[in-house]
Amino acid sequence: MSKKANLTNRKTIQIEWGDCDPAQIVHYPRYLAYFDACTTALFKKAGLSKRQMLKTYQIVGIPLVDLRASFKVPSRFSDTVVVESEITEWRRSSFSVRHRLFNKGVLAVECFEIRVWTAVSERAPERIESNPVPREVVEMFSAENNHGAAHQKSRRKKQ
Amino acid sequence: MSKKANLTNRKTIQIEWGDCDPAQIVHYPRYLAYFDACTTALFKKAGLSKRQMLKTYQIVGIPLVDLRASFKVPSRFSDTVVVESEITEWRRSSFSVRHRLFNKGVLAVECFEIRVWTAVSERAPERIESNPVPREVVEMFSAENNHGAAHQKSRRKKQ
Amino acid sequence: MSKKANLTNRKTIQIEWGDCDPAQIVHYPRYLAYFDACTTALFKKAGLSKRQMLKTYQIVGIPLVDLRASFKVPSRFSDTVVVESEITEWRRSSFSVRHRLFNKGVLAVECFEIRVWTAVSERAPERIESNPVPREVVEMFSAENNHGAAHQKSRRKKQ
Amino acid sequence: MSKKANLTNRKTIQIEWGDCDPAQIVHYPRYLAYFDACTTALFKKAGLSKRQMLKTYQIVGIPLVDLRASFKVPSRFSDTVVVESEITEWRRSSFSVRHRLFNKGVLAVECFEIRVWTAVSERAPERIESNPVPREVVEMFSAENNHGAAHQKSRRKKQ
Repeated sequence: MSKKANLTNRKTIQIEWGDCDPAQIVHYPRYLAYFDACTTALFKKAGLSKRQMLKTYQIVGIPLVDLRASFKVPSRFSDTVVVESEITEWRRSSFSVRHRLFNKGVLAVECFEIRVWTAVSERAPERIESNPVPREVVEMFSAENNHGAAHQKSRRKKQ
Repeated sequence: MSKKANLTNRKTIQIEWGDCDPAQIVHYPRYLAYFDACTTALFKKAGLSKRQMLKTYQIVGIPLVDLRASFKVPSRFSDTVVVESEITEWRRSSFSVRHRLFNKGVLAVECFEIRVWTAVSERAPERIESNPVPREVVEMFSAENNHGAAHQKSRRKKQ
Repeated sequence: MSKKANLTNRKTIQIEWGDCDPAQIVHYPRYLAYFDACTTALFKKAGLSKRQMLKTYQIVGIPLVDLRASFKVPSRFSDTVVVESEITEWRRSSFSVRHRLFNKGVLAVECFEIRVWTAVSERAPERIESNPVPREVVEMFSAENNHGAAHQKSRRKKQ
Repeated sequence: MSKKANLTNRKTIQIEWGDCDPAQIVHYPRYLAYFDACTTALFKKAGLSKRQMLKTYQIVGIPLVDLRASFKVPSRFSDTVVVESEITEWRRSSFSVRHRLFNKGVLAVECFEIRVWTAVSERAPERIESNPVPREVVEMFSAENNHGAAHQKSRRKKQ
C-alpha cells in the first residue's frame, strides 16, 4: 500500500467567542472539534465528502484511537487562524493525520491523530470494527490524484 | 517539591445524546470536555473549587500545554461511565494529570494532560504566563492532606 | 389522549469552566445542551432510558421543533444549579417540555421546548417524520405510573 | 434613537459531523452556537469585531436574555447552509436579532434573540448589568453607514 501522502489542506477558522473560556482563550476541546472538521475538509479536498465517504464505502466513520496535541500559544476570540492538515501515514485499516494550527504565522497548536476506517460488524451488528482502507481512497491522496482533485475543483468552479 | 500525588477522584458521568455523533458513539472532543471537568473535580476534592483557586492564587486558569489520549472502546448515549483522575507529577509551574475512563469496568479511554499554573503577566497585562505552583496547593494533594479532605467531606455530609 | 403530565424530574448540574465564555458566565448554547440532557433524564425517570426508547419504539429521537427560553440571571463556573423539568402537554405526535433552572433557589433560566416523536419514514427512508406518541409512553408520565417508576427505582436500589 | 436596522449579514456555514447527533441531524444547541457566531459576524460587518467592541465600549459582552427558535427542516453533516442575520429593533440597552438559516434555499431554522449591552457594574464589580447602547453603535447599522462598511471592506481587499 502506498505511503505517499502529500495532499495538504489549509482551512481558515474564525475563533468564536463561544469557543473561548473565562481565561479568554480557546477552550482546548474546541481545538479538537476544529481538527475533526479539518480532517473532514482534507478528505473533501481529496474528493470525498463525509456523506459520500460513508455511503460509498459503507462505513460508520473514521473515529480516533489515538490523539496527541501540544498547545504552544493561546488563541483568542476574533483571531483568524489557519490549519494545515495532511495524512502522514497509511496503515492497513488506520491512518495518521497531522494538523498544524497557525495564528499570525506562528505555530500555535500541533495535533496528531490516528483514525480507524470503521464499519458495522457483520457478525455482531451492535458493534463497530476496523476495516481495511480501500486502495482507491489511499490513492486519492497521492500526488497524481491531487491533480485530479484540483482538476475536479476547477471544473466544479467553472460550472 | 514533593512528588507525592496520590489523591484520586472518581467522577460518574452520564453519556448524553448530545455528546454522541452520527456513528452513535461519543464524539471525541466531548471526552476532553469531560476530562477538563474531572480535573476541576479533582482540585475540588483536594479542597479548591475552581472559583476559589482563581481568586485565592490570582491565576487565570490551568490551561493545557500537552495532551495525549487513547480511545480503546467506544461509549454510547445512556452509558454511565466512571473517570478516575489523579495528578501524577508536579513540576515547578506545571503538573501532569491522568484520567482513566471506565465503562462497565473496562478501561475505555486513557488521557494524560500537562497543565500550567497560569497568571496574567505583570509586565505585559495582555499576555498570560506560567507561575510556580504554590507549595500549599501541592500539599493539598499529599496523603496527609487527603485525610483532611476526606474529613471535610464527611463533616459536610453530616451537616 | 391524557393531558395529565405531572411527573417532574430534578437534575443537579455542576456548571463547568468549559461551559462559560469570556464574560465569565454560561455560554447560552450550553444551557440548551443541559436542557436536552434534562429531557432525557425526565424520560428516564418515567422508566425509559433514551436507548430503550429508541429501540422499543423504533424512533430516531425526539428532536425540537420549537424553543423559547428566557435567561434571567447569569450562572458561573463552580455554581451548582438545579433544573426542574416536566411535560406540560401531550399532542398527537408532539409534546411540550418546561425546564426551570434554579441557582441558589432563584429562577435563573426558563425554557419551553416542543419536541416531535420522530421515526424514519417508511416511504422515503432517507427522511424522518413525525409519528403518534404511543399511549403507553404518555401513561408513563401520569400520576399512577409515577408510583410505578418510584417502585422500580427503589427495587433497583435494593439489588 | 434610530430604529433603522437594515444591515444584513450572510454567513455560510459548513455543517460538521461533530455538530450532528445519533439521529444524523444537527444537535439543536449547535444551531444556537452558529447563531451566536452570526451575531458576531453581523457586528463585524458593521465595522466592530467582538474584541474591538469589548475594548472600545468597555463591555463584557452582549448576552442573551430571550431566545425563540423554530426548527422547520433538519440539516445534516456535509450540508452547507447560509444564515441571514439582521438587527430588527434597537431599544435603550438591548436589541433584537433575527437569524434565518437556509438549506438549499429553504428556510430551515428561524431564530430571534434579544441581547443586552452589558458591562461590569460600577457599584458592584462582581456583577454585570445592562448599559445604554451607544448611539454610534446603532448608527453603524443604519443604511448610510452600510456604505461605509462596504467601502472599508473593498479598501481592505485592495490592500
